[in-house]
Amino acid sequence: MTTTSVQHALEGRLPVGGEVTVRGWVRTRRDSKAGLSFVNVSDGSCFAPIQVVAPATLSNYESEVKHLTAGCSVIATGELVASQGKGQGFEIQASRVEVVGWVDDPETYPIQPKAHSLEFLREVAHLRPRTNLFGAVTRIRDCLSKAVHRFFHENGYFWISTPIVTTSDAEGAGQMFRVSTLDLANLPRNASGEVDFSRDFFGKETFLTVSGQLNVEAYCLALSKVYTFGPTFRAENSNTTRHLAEFWMVEPEIAFADLKENARVAEDFLKYLFRAVLDERADDMAFIAERVQKDAVARLEAFINAPFEQIDYTDAIKLLQASGQKFDFPVEWGLDLQTEHERWLTEQHVGRPVVVSNYPEHIKAFYMRLNDDGRTVAAMDVLAPGIGEIIGGSQREERLDVLDARMAQFGLDPGHYQWYRDFRRYGSVPHSGFGLGFERLVVYVCGLSNIRDAIPYPRAPGTADY
Amino acid sequence: MTTTSVQHALEGRLPVGGEVTVRGWVRTRRDSKAGLSFVNVSDGSCFAPIQVVAPATLSNYESEVKHLTAGCSVIATGELVASQGKGQGFEIQASRVEVVGWVDDPETYPIQPKAHSLEFLREVAHLRPRTNLFGAVTRIRDCLSKAVHRFFHENGYFWISTPIVTTSDAEGAGQMFRVSTLDLANLPRNASGEVDFSRDFFGKETFLTVSGQLNVEAYCLALSKVYTFGPTFRAENSNTTRHLAEFWMVEPEIAFADLKENARVAEDFLKYLFRAVLDERADDMAFIAERVQKDAVARLEAFINAPFEQIDYTDAIKLLQASGQKFDFPVEWGLDLQTEHERWLTEQHVGRPVVVSNYPEHIKAFYMRLNDDGRTVAAMDVLAPGIGEIIGGSQREERLDVLDARMAQFGLDPGHYQWYRDFRRYGSVPHSGFGLGFERLVVYVCGLSNIRDAIPYPRAPGTADY
Repeated sequence: MTTTSVQHALEGRLPVGGEVTVRGWVRTRRDSKAGLSFVNVSDGSCFAPIQVVAPATLSNYESEVKHLTAGCSVIATGELVASQGKGQGFEIQASRVEVVGWVDDPETYPIQPKAHSLEFLREVAHLRPRTNLFGAVTRIRDCLSKAVHRFFHENGYFWISTPIVTTSDAEGAGQMFRVSTLDLANLPRNASGEVDFSRDFFGKETFLTVSGQLNVEAYCLALSKVYTFGPTFRAENSNTTRHLAEFWMVEPEIAFADLKENARVAEDFLKYLFRAVLDERADDMAFIAERVQKDAVARLEAFINAPFEQIDYTDAIKLLQASGQKFDFPVEWGLDLQTEHERWLTEQHVGRPVVVSNYPEHIKAFYMRLNDDGRTVAAMDVLAPGIGEIIGGSQREERLDVLDARMAQFGLDPGHYQWYRDFRRYGSVPHSGFGLGFERLVVYVCGLSNIRDAIPYPRAPGTADY
Repeated sequence: MTTTSVQHALEGRLPVGGEVTVRGWVRTRRDSKAGLSFVNVSDGSCFAPIQVVAPATLSNYESEVKHLTAGCSVIATGELVASQGKGQGFEIQASRVEVVGWVDDPETYPIQPKAHSLEFLREVAHLRPRTNLFGAVTRIRDCLSKAVHRFFHENGYFWISTPIVTTSDAEGAGQMFRVSTLDLANLPRNASGEVDFSRDFFGKETFLTVSGQLNVEAYCLALSKVYTFGPTFRAENSNTTRHLAEFWMVEPEIAFADLKENARVAEDFLKYLFRAVLDERADDMAFIAERVQKDAVARLEAFINAPFEQIDYTDAIKLLQASGQKFDFPVEWGLDLQTEHERWLTEQHVGRPVVVSNYPEHIKAFYMRLNDDGRTVAAMDVLAPGIGEIIGGSQREERLDVLDARMAQFGLDPGHYQWYRDFRRYGSVPHSGFGLGFERLVVYVCGLSNIRDAIPYPRAPGTADY
């Protein structure tokens, strides 16, 4: 007897006619008039459940098998045979079906074998992994995360875990969450009556990180190619379908790379990730294409096969102004591009992914490299049809005098950034990097319309995000 | 001309006699009386720097090359030749050495080509990646993280990112960090004068997670084999050489697995990780063995080759009591094992890794499965020579009535754990899992004595951990 995953049983790698055991949860049960039951059992190892054919001769057929409902856990043993039904290669002719766990009050079990609204499933997030959709999203998310690490490994990058609790705000902007162990009912005060953070856990005021970029630069300027992949936090705009307060971010940083090289890595990277999903999760992607987003597979294929278009921000503004298109937000040199502009460029104008480069310096962060025109910085955004911006990056300002001037312009205290200035004092090199919001990637690949469906635990009891 | 990493140039995969370009940071410069200079250049891609032989005929030889100091960044081009020196296969006969970045005031540059105290390097954590030791630790840490993901991938596990900001305390104990956006200078109060968390960002009191385990169980009970690998937080005991307030944890969770299976996975897992480091980071491990911990390689080899010993907690107590050994902490049935006890068991008594199982129920967490004796739970600790406990795990209590009784015993509010109780109401199955502190693993592999040397950013400007 071989205990096997449903995936292996269905793949046809096990000997037909051999005895196998599978373990999992009942999806559906159908009783035939011929006096046997078809029990679909899923263990989450792949999209499909396996059909277990339970004959009436089983000793517990009447007492147990005929009472199985969705969600019951079972261990089924029997002969692996070619399936009579269509669409599935193998099934199990059961010689034994052990019920491990029943479902209390099956009528009220939240995950019935029917379609549920996504809104409802967010309220039972701890059980939604048992649905087809969230099983698929979870496996695709896993596949993408593995591909992220593999891409960087194959290309000589080292993973760096940058600090989550931090005293610095990487962007010089953005609302942050405070991290503290001070007793709110009894806050310590200093002589001037202000909260005394010297008595907090770390002896100073601390926050959740908004980005690991500044920290990871230190490792880039020693190990040449590095990346972060970890959680980041923004205490703003959380209650929308597009923003999360807590999300994972991928941030590679590349020594001796200019903006062009940065864009090339971003292109290779995205194509590698999409290739991995198409190759490794064809089962889940087929379901996504069938039920969620009709062109889910086709648009990833198209993405992979299209060379990215390169457009200068200044040219993009001219194109948008000449488009004859009506936009809600103004189009003008010096203003940032909105999603509607980005989508027009990538979907209507070019029809494939676009890298927009060299944005006005005053709308981008202080650490981005000032171009020779003095008006723009070496920043880039990668825009993709169907979503708009998916990656943002820049070449970093490696010249200490220019960096100092930029910090002064942004009102930043150079004393607070002394460590960051050090990289420009000690063997400074040109370097570039970009950021990819991991949940945004999952949303794109899975054709989701609410980013809360791309994270494992939205609105769940015991968790905070909503 | 081929731009290459130092690793590729040294590996001998490029054609000898071909022209190559390397980019990196100067480690040392030595001028020969014969009128040429030997410049060791590191790009962090592997442990060794490459030797660039710079002849006096270079146009910038007198003006620049002879002024290179540790930390300067250069781009060196030349012929790749078999090295005359011992210990290194290849070097570059430079036809061009471009200085990209100088070092301001070389006398005060913190990373001189000499041994530094670890204490000193913690104070310049943003520059310490440029040292031999922290380059090695960073590459080993990367290798271990990749091996974690690969082990689980090869064995059918899916990665789950559990929430960082949470309302629940997974252990029912342990100091947590509060996460909040409330204005401390002006805290909102409710009618009874208490802090009004309904006006906080998430509308309730929130904390940083201490473990993803309870959350990941939901995914286990749908996808069968899952794991977390993400940051966790403890607001206690931080100022020691063994504890961190912020650390990464690996937590697999396995459906249908009992404690024995759990221990088997833990053994396979650790051996897989150590094998990966020995195979993939032989260069860095050789340095660790030479400079940090003499038996670093030998003890990993021994670990891989030893079958783990299995000891019951009750037997372990008897062994310790009969040992004739003097311990600082008392040895008595019902008390937890201390590091001194663990190390005696694994180092003195058995001489290889030991799994201690079935601990007294009152010293372990509420979710661990009560054994039939009613006095112990199906908990296990994996102890390793040289460090003591490295993995802790348990079979989980899958029986709702027993879980409820345990929660009552621990004074936990069942209403707060309704979602966790659901898994026991809907298709409950036996399941098990364990936790591995990732930094503790790095400490062990790299032979470090302070856990702050196993994280990328201790005590650094802009970060909080100290």
